[in-house]
Amino acid sequence: MENEIFQLQYALDTFYFLISGAFVMWMAAGFAMLEAGLVRAKNTTEILTKNVMLFAIACTAYLVVGYDIMYDGGMFLAGIVGDGVAGADEPATYAPSADFFFQVVFVATAMSIVSGAVAERMKLWAFAAFAIVMTAFIYPMEGSWTWGGADVFGMYNLGDLGFLDFAGSGIVHMAGAAAALAGVMLLGARKGKYGPNGEVRPIPGGNLPLATLGTFILWLGWFGFNGGSVLATASVESANAVAVVFMNTNAAAAGGVLAALIVAKLMFGKADLTMILNGALAGLVAITAGPDTPTPLMATIIGAIGGLIVVFSIVFMDKVKIDDPVGAISVHGVVGLWGLLAVPLTNSDASFSAQIIGAVTIFVWVFVTSLIVWGVLKMVMGIRVSEEEEYEGVDLVECGMEAYPEFTNSGK
Amino acid sequence: MENEIFQLQYALDTFYFLISGAFVMWMAAGFAMLEAGLVRAKNTTEILTKNVMLFAIACTAYLVVGYDIMYDGGMFLAGIVGDGVAGADEPATYAPSADFFFQVVFVATAMSIVSGAVAERMKLWAFAAFAIVMTAFIYPMEGSWTWGGADVFGMYNLGDLGFLDFAGSGIVHMAGAAAALAGVMLLGARKGKYGPNGEVRPIPGGNLPLATLGTFILWLGWFGFNGGSVLATASVESANAVAVVFMNTNAAAAGGVLAALIVAKLMFGKADLTMILNGALAGLVAITAGPDTPTPLMATIIGAIGGLIVVFSIVFMDKVKIDDPVGAISVHGVVGLWGLLAVPLTNSDASFSAQIIGAVTIFVWVFVTSLIVWGVLKMVMGIRVSEEEEYEGVDLVECGMEAYPEFTNSGK
Amino acid sequence: MENEIFQLQYALDTFYFLISGAFVMWMAAGFAMLEAGLVRAKNTTEILTKNVMLFAIACTAYLVVGYDIMYDGGMFLAGIVGDGVAGADEPATYAPSADFFFQVVFVATAMSIVSGAVAERMKLWAFAAFAIVMTAFIYPMEGSWTWGGADVFGMYNLGDLGFLDFAGSGIVHMAGAAAALAGVMLLGARKGKYGPNGEVRPIPGGNLPLATLGTFILWLGWFGFNGGSVLATASVESANAVAVVFMNTNAAAAGGVLAALIVAKLMFGKADLTMILNGALAGLVAITAGPDTPTPLMATIIGAIGGLIVVFSIVFMDKVKIDDPVGAISVHGVVGLWGLLAVPLTNSDASFSAQIIGAVTIFVWVFVTSLIVWGVLKMVMGIRVSEEEEYEGVDLVECGMEAYPEFTNSGK
Repeated sequence: MENEIFQLQYALDTFYFLISGAFVMWMAAGFAMLEAGLVRAKNTTEILTKNVMLFAIACTAYLVVGYDIMYDGGMFLAGIVGDGVAGADEPATYAPSADFFFQVVFVATAMSIVSGAVAERMKLWAFAAFAIVMTAFIYPMEGSWTWGGADVFGMYNLGDLGFLDFAGSGIVHMAGAAAALAGVMLLGARKGKYGPNGEVRPIPGGNLPLATLGTFILWLGWFGFNGGSVLATASVESANAVAVVFMNTNAAAAGGVLAALIVAKLMFGKADLTMILNGALAGLVAITAGPDTPTPLMATIIGAIGGLIVVFSIVFMDKVKIDDPVGAISVHGVVGLWGLLAVPLTNSDASFSAQIIGAVTIFVWVFVTSLIVWGVLKMVMGIRVSEEEEYEGVDLVECGMEAYPEFTNSGK
Repeated sequence: MENEIFQLQYALDTFYFLISGAFVMWMAAGFAMLEAGLVRAKNTTEILTKNVMLFAIACTAYLVVGYDIMYDGGMFLAGIVGDGVAGADEPATYAPSADFFFQVVFVATAMSIVSGAVAERMKLWAFAAFAIVMTAFIYPMEGSWTWGGADVFGMYNLGDLGFLDFAGSGIVHMAGAAAALAGVMLLGARKGKYGPNGEVRPIPGGNLPLATLGTFILWLGWFGFNGGSVLATASVESANAVAVVFMNTNAAAAGGVLAALIVAKLMFGKADLTMILNGALAGLVAITAGPDTPTPLMATIIGAIGGLIVVFSIVFMDKVKIDDPVGAISVHGVVGLWGLLAVPLTNSDASFSAQIIGAVTIFVWVFVTSLIVWGVLKMVMGIRVSEEEEYEGVDLVECGMEAYPEFTNSGK
Repeated sequence: MENEIFQLQYALDTFYFLISGAFVMWMAAGFAMLEAGLVRAKNTTEILTKNVMLFAIACTAYLVVGYDIMYDGGMFLAGIVGDGVAGADEPATYAPSADFFFQVVFVATAMSIVSGAVAERMKLWAFAAFAIVMTAFIYPMEGSWTWGGADVFGMYNLGDLGFLDFAGSGIVHMAGAAAALAGVMLLGARKGKYGPNGEVRPIPGGNLPLATLGTFILWLGWFGFNGGSVLATASVESANAVAVVFMNTNAAAAGGVLAALIVAKLMFGKADLTMILNGALAGLVAITAGPDTPTPLMATIIGAIGGLIVVFSIVFMDKVKIDDPVGAISVHGVVGLWGLLAVPLTNSDASFSAQIIGAVTIFVWVFVTSLIVWGVLKMVMGIRVSEEEEYEGVDLVECGMEAYPEFTNSGK
């Protein structure tokens, strides 16, 4: 009977992991819809293609190489033994395959963040090449130093320092944003985004219901992202923790919406829907580093500060001519950093110094390696479409088809 | 080992609550897509904004005030002790935070119902103000008399009378519709909806795939809405009940589709997609008051009667010039009442008299208080945009951006 | 305590079935969005109507007749006793209603496959009539010979022969495709699809974000489709099996995407989004017959071969003038066959001969009966709209409303 109880715990924890992983997989659809809604019609097919493609690349590259690097298992999953989380030798308390599934959808999330920022002017195949390196190597390396428990180049151990990033404000979101930032800097702004005298010209998204749908999908998927990161649910203690994480994740998103709504109204005089959507995502990113310790009211506030930051950050990025069509660098990078720094506010196990060391480690590693990879790609194959192609839209040149052939006049 | 079994029951019930709650949260996306698909392009950004905003307002207002009123806990969740459902003293059988999460997404659902009915002419900020009062006070008060178990103004107790509303045909859906009806009556019909000689002019929805997607999202989310309302699943009896609820919820939606399809064909000569979608929702609303007792065939019939009612109700509302762009008052209000009245047909614990007393209590409370709040808002800040703004579309004036800037000529 | 452990197993397995079933129900939205995105704007309302309608028909017909035929229970669910899967007499190990719910969404999936292939020219009511026969009789009959365990017309038993089709590459997907093929052959190609000299004219889909969303929805839903087909999860063994199925389902979809991406690039010079989406679905169909035995790398390869096949199959179908607007016959039929044949590669319990006998049995039964039903419908009521109606679009004639009245010029 002891054994039967163990089996039930094992089964419940496995099922919880699988459902959480399915929710995170669903975030791929969220990013695809969000980005497809925020670009112009003529660049929509290509951003959809990128989103489907990057998910497939991430799943395959992480399977073949990345998981091995991150958790020191064997190639081709041969090494998935023990509890599957850190390749340890303890007997498994849930299915190893469920662990892999939960991890693989995380790397896809990190990569999804990149596609939006480089939208509307990057070459599809350069993006594909970057996606391979990012998901097979760059992300798994920093993952090995954080969730994997390895020393950073044998020098120091983030876990020993007390670095805490519950579900990945830094490990996933800021990492994705750092890769995006490197790409955007080498890529340059879209034609016409910044005028000759430095004025910022708005390029409105082509389909706001899609962008809203994408945000709701991400909001839903985040329950799996954060909730699954408790890593167990089959006891009173862990079930309570998962429940707190769900409640706080939702509260933080709500806080982000309200702050962005109010700040945008004060700054621009309107209820700016794209800012509100980014506010929701900022709230979610902000709480991700520590959704288990705040009260729900504190979670609302942490999310609201994220929503406040994101509006100013998006305005700032345009000031310094970092052209990010969907605001991904602000949402996932700047607010991801805020999420890391917010952990010590409610968690006495965390310290600002450890959070800063962790943030710098992740950012420097991902940004520098990404800059090198983007740079090599720029030399070897080019990363930007031609000016005419950009004017015509990347859909026809890259994918040979328009997203909405009957709605617009772009292809007629 | 006794303790380990308890822990597993606790963990499974908690997980079941959290997943159910996540499904209900997903209904927010359903309402957003449904309403965005059924309004005209020029009013789409604003209805999306309202839907994201109201969800955030509901989550925050219910956290700060509403939950406390409804279940008599302490302010800021301090009082979530015991089983969390009614502030009782019994030890918890699942995580209190999971209960809060499940409850908070319900209040958002009630509020989502309102936004569609007042679409295309209401001021955004008046709507926001109403949302605060509705989710902080009006809904929690009637919730306290039903699921909260409190006496209605100390006069009578709906639970003692035998009022049964399993997952909220009345408590959530008819309540939302009552608030919407009050708003529509003070707001008036959209310009051009009714001709000078009383003729009804159809204003077709701008994006039917979105409306269909929204309906499917709601259909899916309803499994959490009704299924989670069993409130436990970790025993043979409760697991069987949850399974019956899932089966019947699906069957009722199917019945609603078929009835609306056939009735609309007979009345209008066409397979009217918007009626079919409302038929699905009507089937879902109809079964919500009692999804646990009918056979699946009976559930199909209850849903089909809902689908039949909704077609006639939508036609009737236009006759009396209640202009509801998405049919929410018919779907959630009229069919919500039908759902309450259908309970005694299959549940011998219910009585028509108790159902009617409950329905009247909910309707009168929500309608009257809403009328007062809408009325005050009308005097203080106005609830309707100007005639020119309505003609131009509320998107530009309220949100400063079009939903589909490249597809229509409205903004060029 | 023995009893309490049994109750927990029962409850967990039931909950797992219900969540899996909800995911499969969600596939209905996936098919609706996929098909609505791949047809032209003028035929979108009708394909949406068909998808909602067929789901409702399937649920009701299978409830009233089909489940009984397939599992030999009693009419109107009276016979759901025992474990509910095969009407056996063993005591239930999960809720019978959960089994029904899981089964009923499968039949809807089979029917959903048909609607896309016959899009843009079939009469709505002829389709509805076919849906009734398919879901009440044709599918349940072949289901009785496979998952139901009955002899094929008393002649041979597929289970005894060793036929293995885990979640239904053949039983569901190829069956749906066989019904679609029969319909398309009697229906003929869309006007203008093939030129007088045999040239194939592309008819691009009208809304690719919708098609992409539909694919992601199906991908997500497939975790329930395949994962739920383990039929239990409350033990270490079954939990491990479910986890392997989730991991492999995802890996196969990724493989399908990558293969279709590369093959389409080589063949057409572009990253063809519609081929990539069909590649994802092909990967999913391919792994469905045996997701429990391959390693994840092998699953990726099985999916990739599916993605490769689907590109060639779609090109071939156009060569032989089988006009399938969404590629459903290739995705679900041709690749469904590949899925069946791939099982012996990783599962020593399977044999090619049994797989072929099973495939032939399913195909011949469904194709021949469907041909008869479509033929009778063609004689009795006609199955194709008039040439003028096809030119105008089926939306106005069948449904009386356009899907996007403000975006296109079709109705002005």
